[in-house]
Amino acid sequence: MADRVAQQLVYFFGENGAEGDAGMRELLGGKGADLAEMSRLGVPVPPGFTITTEACLMYFQEGNRLPEALAQEIESSLARLERLQGKKFGDVKNPLLVSVRSGARSSMPGMMDTILNLGLSIPTAQGLSTLTGNPRFAWDCFRRLIQMYADVVLGVDPSLFEKALEETRARRGVEEDSRLGAADLEELCRRFVAIVKGVGGVDFPLQPKEQLLGAVGAVFRSWNNERAATYRRLHRIPGNWGTAVTVQAMVFGNRGENSATGVAFTRDPATGERKPYGEYLLNAQGEDVVAGIRTPAPLSRRPEASAASSLEEVMPQAHRQLLEVFSRLESHYRDMLDIEFTIEEGRLYILQSRRGKRTGFASVRCAVEMVEEGLIDPQTAVQRVEPEQLVQLLAPVFEPAAKDSALAEGRLLSRGLNAGPGAASGRAMLSAEKVVEMSRRGEKVILVRLETSPEDIAGMAAAEGILTARGGMTSHAAVVARGMGKICVVGCSDLAVDYEHRILRFKEQEVLEGQPISIDGTTGEILKGSLPTIPSEIIQVLVEGTLPKERSRVHGQFSTLLQWADQVKRLGVRTNADTPTDARVARAFGAAGIGLCRTEHMFFGADRIAAVREMILSESETERRRALAKLLPMQRNDFLGIFREMEGLPVTIRLLDPPLHEFLPKDRATLEQIGAEMGVSVDRLWNKVESLHEFNPMLGHRGCRLGVTYPEIYETQARAIIEAAATLVREGRKVLPEVMIPLVGIPEEYHRLASLVQRVGAQVMEEQGCSVEAKIGTMIEIPRACLLAEEIGRVAEFFSFGTNDLTQLGFGFSRDDAGVYLPLYVEEGILPHDPFQSLDCEGIGRLIQMAVVEGRKGNPHLKVGVCGEHGGDPHSVEFFHGAGLDYVSCSPYRVPVARLAAARAALARSV
Amino acid sequence: MADRVAQQLVYFFGENGAEGDAGMRELLGGKGADLAEMSRLGVPVPPGFTITTEACLMYFQEGNRLPEALAQEIESSLARLERLQGKKFGDVKNPLLVSVRSGARSSMPGMMDTILNLGLSIPTAQGLSTLTGNPRFAWDCFRRLIQMYADVVLGVDPSLFEKALEETRARRGVEEDSRLGAADLEELCRRFVAIVKGVGGVDFPLQPKEQLLGAVGAVFRSWNNERAATYRRLHRIPGNWGTAVTVQAMVFGNRGENSATGVAFTRDPATGERKPYGEYLLNAQGEDVVAGIRTPAPLSRRPEASAASSLEEVMPQAHRQLLEVFSRLESHYRDMLDIEFTIEEGRLYILQSRRGKRTGFASVRCAVEMVEEGLIDPQTAVQRVEPEQLVQLLAPVFEPAAKDSALAEGRLLSRGLNAGPGAASGRAMLSAEKVVEMSRRGEKVILVRLETSPEDIAGMAAAEGILTARGGMTSHAAVVARGMGKICVVGCSDLAVDYEHRILRFKEQEVLEGQPISIDGTTGEILKGSLPTIPSEIIQVLVEGTLPKERSRVHGQFSTLLQWADQVKRLGVRTNADTPTDARVARAFGAAGIGLCRTEHMFFGADRIAAVREMILSESETERRRALAKLLPMQRNDFLGIFREMEGLPVTIRLLDPPLHEFLPKDRATLEQIGAEMGVSVDRLWNKVESLHEFNPMLGHRGCRLGVTYPEIYETQARAIIEAAATLVREGRKVLPEVMIPLVGIPEEYHRLASLVQRVGAQVMEEQGCSVEAKIGTMIEIPRACLLAEEIGRVAEFFSFGTNDLTQLGFGFSRDDAGVYLPLYVEEGILPHDPFQSLDCEGIGRLIQMAVVEGRKGNPHLKVGVCGEHGGDPHSVEFFHGAGLDYVSCSPYRVPVARLAAARAALARSV
Repeated sequence: MADRVAQQLVYFFGENGAEGDAGMRELLGGKGADLAEMSRLGVPVPPGFTITTEACLMYFQEGNRLPEALAQEIESSLARLERLQGKKFGDVKNPLLVSVRSGARSSMPGMMDTILNLGLSIPTAQGLSTLTGNPRFAWDCFRRLIQMYADVVLGVDPSLFEKALEETRARRGVEEDSRLGAADLEELCRRFVAIVKGVGGVDFPLQPKEQLLGAVGAVFRSWNNERAATYRRLHRIPGNWGTAVTVQAMVFGNRGENSATGVAFTRDPATGERKPYGEYLLNAQGEDVVAGIRTPAPLSRRPEASAASSLEEVMPQAHRQLLEVFSRLESHYRDMLDIEFTIEEGRLYILQSRRGKRTGFASVRCAVEMVEEGLIDPQTAVQRVEPEQLVQLLAPVFEPAAKDSALAEGRLLSRGLNAGPGAASGRAMLSAEKVVEMSRRGEKVILVRLETSPEDIAGMAAAEGILTARGGMTSHAAVVARGMGKICVVGCSDLAVDYEHRILRFKEQEVLEGQPISIDGTTGEILKGSLPTIPSEIIQVLVEGTLPKERSRVHGQFSTLLQWADQVKRLGVRTNADTPTDARVARAFGAAGIGLCRTEHMFFGADRIAAVREMILSESETERRRALAKLLPMQRNDFLGIFREMEGLPVTIRLLDPPLHEFLPKDRATLEQIGAEMGVSVDRLWNKVESLHEFNPMLGHRGCRLGVTYPEIYETQARAIIEAAATLVREGRKVLPEVMIPLVGIPEEYHRLASLVQRVGAQVMEEQGCSVEAKIGTMIEIPRACLLAEEIGRVAEFFSFGTNDLTQLGFGFSRDDAGVYLPLYVEEGILPHDPFQSLDCEGIGRLIQMAVVEGRKGNPHLKVGVCGEHGGDPHSVEFFHGAGLDYVSCSPYRVPVARLAAARAALARSV
Repeated sequence: MADRVAQQLVYFFGENGAEGDAGMRELLGGKGADLAEMSRLGVPVPPGFTITTEACLMYFQEGNRLPEALAQEIESSLARLERLQGKKFGDVKNPLLVSVRSGARSSMPGMMDTILNLGLSIPTAQGLSTLTGNPRFAWDCFRRLIQMYADVVLGVDPSLFEKALEETRARRGVEEDSRLGAADLEELCRRFVAIVKGVGGVDFPLQPKEQLLGAVGAVFRSWNNERAATYRRLHRIPGNWGTAVTVQAMVFGNRGENSATGVAFTRDPATGERKPYGEYLLNAQGEDVVAGIRTPAPLSRRPEASAASSLEEVMPQAHRQLLEVFSRLESHYRDMLDIEFTIEEGRLYILQSRRGKRTGFASVRCAVEMVEEGLIDPQTAVQRVEPEQLVQLLAPVFEPAAKDSALAEGRLLSRGLNAGPGAASGRAMLSAEKVVEMSRRGEKVILVRLETSPEDIAGMAAAEGILTARGGMTSHAAVVARGMGKICVVGCSDLAVDYEHRILRFKEQEVLEGQPISIDGTTGEILKGSLPTIPSEIIQVLVEGTLPKERSRVHGQFSTLLQWADQVKRLGVRTNADTPTDARVARAFGAAGIGLCRTEHMFFGADRIAAVREMILSESETERRRALAKLLPMQRNDFLGIFREMEGLPVTIRLLDPPLHEFLPKDRATLEQIGAEMGVSVDRLWNKVESLHEFNPMLGHRGCRLGVTYPEIYETQARAIIEAAATLVREGRKVLPEVMIPLVGIPEEYHRLASLVQRVGAQVMEEQGCSVEAKIGTMIEIPRACLLAEEIGRVAEFFSFGTNDLTQLGFGFSRDDAGVYLPLYVEEGILPHDPFQSLDCEGIGRLIQMAVVEGRKGNPHLKVGVCGEHGGDPHSVEFFHGAGLDYVSCSPYRVPVARLAAARAALARSV
């Protein structure tokens, strides 16, 4: 195979055909393979040829010299190209110009070199000027060629040319190159040629073919430049792949009134409607469309009057040909495409065609409708929608017209990080208590805080949206908001929250507490005043029940897609839910159970926090048991409600996890108030707060360590769970509780606490005279637990990975503090992404993989899931699928995302 | 083999011989094998026989029934025993009594059952009474037998007997059983027999042989009791080993004035002097010696007048025989032994002989002198001394007489944890500043704090000793004190430190600041007033240089032993040292380089903390570089001093590690003072302190994360290191700096910072015109780094494990906060030991093992060491040896410990 391929170093494309095809990315690079494929399809791409990656490796092997055989193949391919285009390379009258571009097996955007307009010289530039009637264009092309070539191929210091340009600009009194005229540019070209001669010691141009071979060698060499090497290191691209090089005829859309250039989508990228959508400019180059200096006209005739004439009207034949290409490409690639085209003297060329970017709405609609059209099958449809895009379909939005006019009125206050998509308006309130109070009166409120803490939970739940001045995408506010599906903007650094005077200060404007503001969690914008919003159709159907499902196309296509997803996914998708309401929403979104029910959130409830604090302040086991006895019926009721909502599905309940000091306020004023309510001296409270203080609470007295030191707490919780389950069993309902022991790092911790739960469970079942099918397992979130997973697996019925803590401990990163350096790490490529948002597969993932394998050695029937934030992240879900987990669990609003991601993972792996 | 052994289920010993020997622990258990061995040596042990572990397993296999063959072997062995002792089992006139004891392959103290005095019944008890002339003894033996047998074999509720005892005591008006007379006991025995009949439905005694077989079965079964099973689970002893059972003739030292009992050491256990040391009581049982009610007499005639007569005088023949046994056993076991003996009617019996416990002084002396005597070789000597014991040899002690009289005067204030051995007196001072101030005036001071923090370092260094009210053996105070070799008592919970009134309040006494106290870090005692101390001879020789080494036998034997250790050890032993003084001390103790030089301790120096704070408060890189420029010459000087002390040896310097907020005070008053000194507003300082606050500083912005965000800090440090090295290289000296990048968890972090150090190094070498052999490597202390060790190893020259942080992260334990639950974990056996004191080999050790293997895959020449606290812990050193590390590094005062531990590890592994 290698021998046969080694024969051919250059692959031609053009004339509605090609020697290569889309399957030859390894040899031709991504770009070369795509061009060959389009040419095969009869799509009119500018012709050219691709030099293989093998040729590149040969070049390196021969000490950066072009092999003789390659030079010959390039020469004959060039001759073929000249014949095809009816132009000659280096010809004065009708010169063929070519581009030379790199193209590796996987995309390395901007890392390697490109040279455009090869084939120009002073005489051919004059010829091009005559031919196009556009001397400025011709000389500008040549100027750019000299600069690029001198830099990339000859190694001439670029600042020499910049200096010459600067002098000319100064002489003309202009600030931009685009203001220089044809004569200036021609003169510059002559000066540039002289510079090259003076410094590089060569005449420019060299022989055109020598020019071309020099360019090819330079692009090969750019595979090894420092930028590219760093990029490969960071993206783990092997250094021995090499790059292909594509030499392609250049075409120009600015050769007169029968030339044009444009961009188009084969369907509407905003809505997904099956209707081509695009814009073009007459007598222009591609960059003019992008630059937005001239206003482009639409492709097709529009019903309404339009300022500019459509391509359909101006060049009906090219327009027809273009539509035909659209349909050919769509039926080949079976996807909505984004296409760049140029018309040179009436002749259509397709420069690029790639998968079209689209909104979540368009993504779902295209996928589902293409199945209906018979273009793709349901599995492909599932692979077409990015799971993350589904979030857009669930979020409310501001009425577009209202928002536009608000922006026009200068009501934009600032921008923050878009932590929770959707749009919300309400009175800005600066404390959770006030939010709760006002929302009870039916007011819409936005909770505004410097940052949020667990004590704000009730306020966050009652607010329409949350705005914070501090914190990143993984701050408490952001994480809780995502969990609740709340609209949220965090880390607005322009915002100072003045709690004393109850004022929000932005850079230039102020908002008093109680005045309305609007936040857009999809864009991060913060606006003054209220704006009307439209709730998402899907939420109206599934959660509010205010829209009949047969009336919503969006909901219909959304659920069709997810049904297809469910047919192929292997992973179960559960939800993290602490309340019956959360459980109900999650079930509507298709959750197959609860993977994490946190009991501590319940402890903050207004009716029980007093009992919780009494328990914490107890000086003896007896006192503690007395307080716990008050909590027991409340906890039992919590679980009853959740079990009812999740009837027939498993519910994993985590025993108390956070350090006890989280339940006590830290300021003396609040302590005095509580002391008065509880009839306890403020000093006793203060001493307790002091004695519970921890330097590193994340690594502190929490999780199963609480269970070991205060077994009566876990006993009470186990009792509440089994009693609630028994109540329903006696009603004839099916309940599947799973008791989860958190933060186990030592097998003996698990052994001891699992025995305690078993003992209490057996007691309750005897008391209640019925049997409850309860499982006992543990959360795997301590690195040591992964190392000793076999031993823990021998006695546990399930593992659930707590990937948040596992990430914190594996990296030694505190999620609450990492905002100082983590963004920089991601920005500079030290980490490919924030490991709290998407699992670090190579590090933390390895721990998980180890724990799965070892755990199942200990117990082949071990059920393994994940209940950290990562359970709702598509990339992480793909990893969990590959690691052989049984299920993922995520917040209710991310259940659809996880279902789709699980399906895509199954399909990706099955290829 | 198994077949042959299966033939014999019982092994006899006695008559100066035995069927078994010391090599048969698996079959005979530890106790059985030792008794057989002594008997073989002709040591007069009470004869008996051991039933094998195989018999035990057969018993279980047959559903807890004694195999027929076994019963027969027991019977014939019993007959042999009767012949040998000239007594008969169950005989009324001259009854043979036996004990039945468990004995597993490894010791499980107190976990299984034992039955003494078997063979007694009402008639034989009467016979024994007559025979011994001691009816109280005879009836008490029988009473105990019934109680034990009824509980262990027959399963009768023990409280029934307790109740009967209680009634008898009440009737007699006494509180202890020992006050009951022979008649009371005889009556009780009769009542006990009735109880057994009433509840158990059996006559007591059964047939004596039936009694014996019942006891054997019960001891077998006790292998499976819950206590033993838990013990095995915690100590990882397999459940299928089973236990052996030894049946042995009982002998009595209380059969009259020609009977006696005693304990002895073959050499002096306090000093190691070659002179038997022991005590005995005439007409007494072993427990009487231990109980201390009667004052025992010495074994040998003493020069000084003695109240009691020596055994040498009273029973010269037995004494001579005893000395002969000592010498036989010493020359057999080649060790100092602890021996229990009984003389029954003039006949000597050795009941037990085991390795004698001894002080550190005795341990070293015995080992070295036994080599001189030709008893053992140097390698054995090395294996004889517990490394930890060497610490005793280095610590100063209170003059014994002075301390005794202080205790007699009631000057003991309280006790705490003995965190740093040695004795110190001085004025109690409550702040580090005052300690420094007074010590400058030549005063001896004890620093007393609630707890210490890094800001107290200077005071800790200047103090004679440190006392804290809070914290455990791994608290800041304890760890720093061990590192400095300081005397230290921590966690004295009786102590309240009243900073406001400058008073130490103990439970009943108070000490004003400035008054003298004395602390004994070897025992944890705290005394009022000053006590004279004697400094350790070794310190006088090696550190102070006040004692010529030829005048100290202790130092001579100490260094002889360590030279032997160095000849066999494979691991290098380096030291953790931050100052030239530490480096000098460590070198005197034999350190082969510095494994960890922490640069942050230097930052707290009075002359530089201002520049450090200026650096932290800088708002821009330019400001920061200005402050760093002030630090550069100081850091360079620090390194110069250390390099000079360590000439020719490697010095590993860790770049800045702690979070920057550690360098700023946290209270507003101090901030105001600093602000005034620096000319900076207190608000700016306060804002900085606030902005640097972290929820979990352990997981915060520290280590190489500082290097990534503020590269100029690491640049300055790298420059200081290489400039200092270059200075010495130009003086013709050999310097081997190793630059260590801390807290790496991501290969790219290392790559980036190692490049930075390389770049700066190359620059400096060019400037200075000389070449420095510097290595660059990283500290492995983040779990993720262990997982990605291969990739990091590819580019690093060395790894040094930071086992403190690795333990914190691997377990998710904050060392500063774990005091709340960790002691309980150790106490209840959830963990076998505190993982911060001794490495958790099965968890954290697995991470280390993985990193070593993976790291060397990346770089076969990778040098691997450890620089955490564990580097000085003998058990951990053994693990590090086995894991293939190249060196360990520990605090200067622990270097001898680590040298010895490394040698022992090499010997243990070479077996």
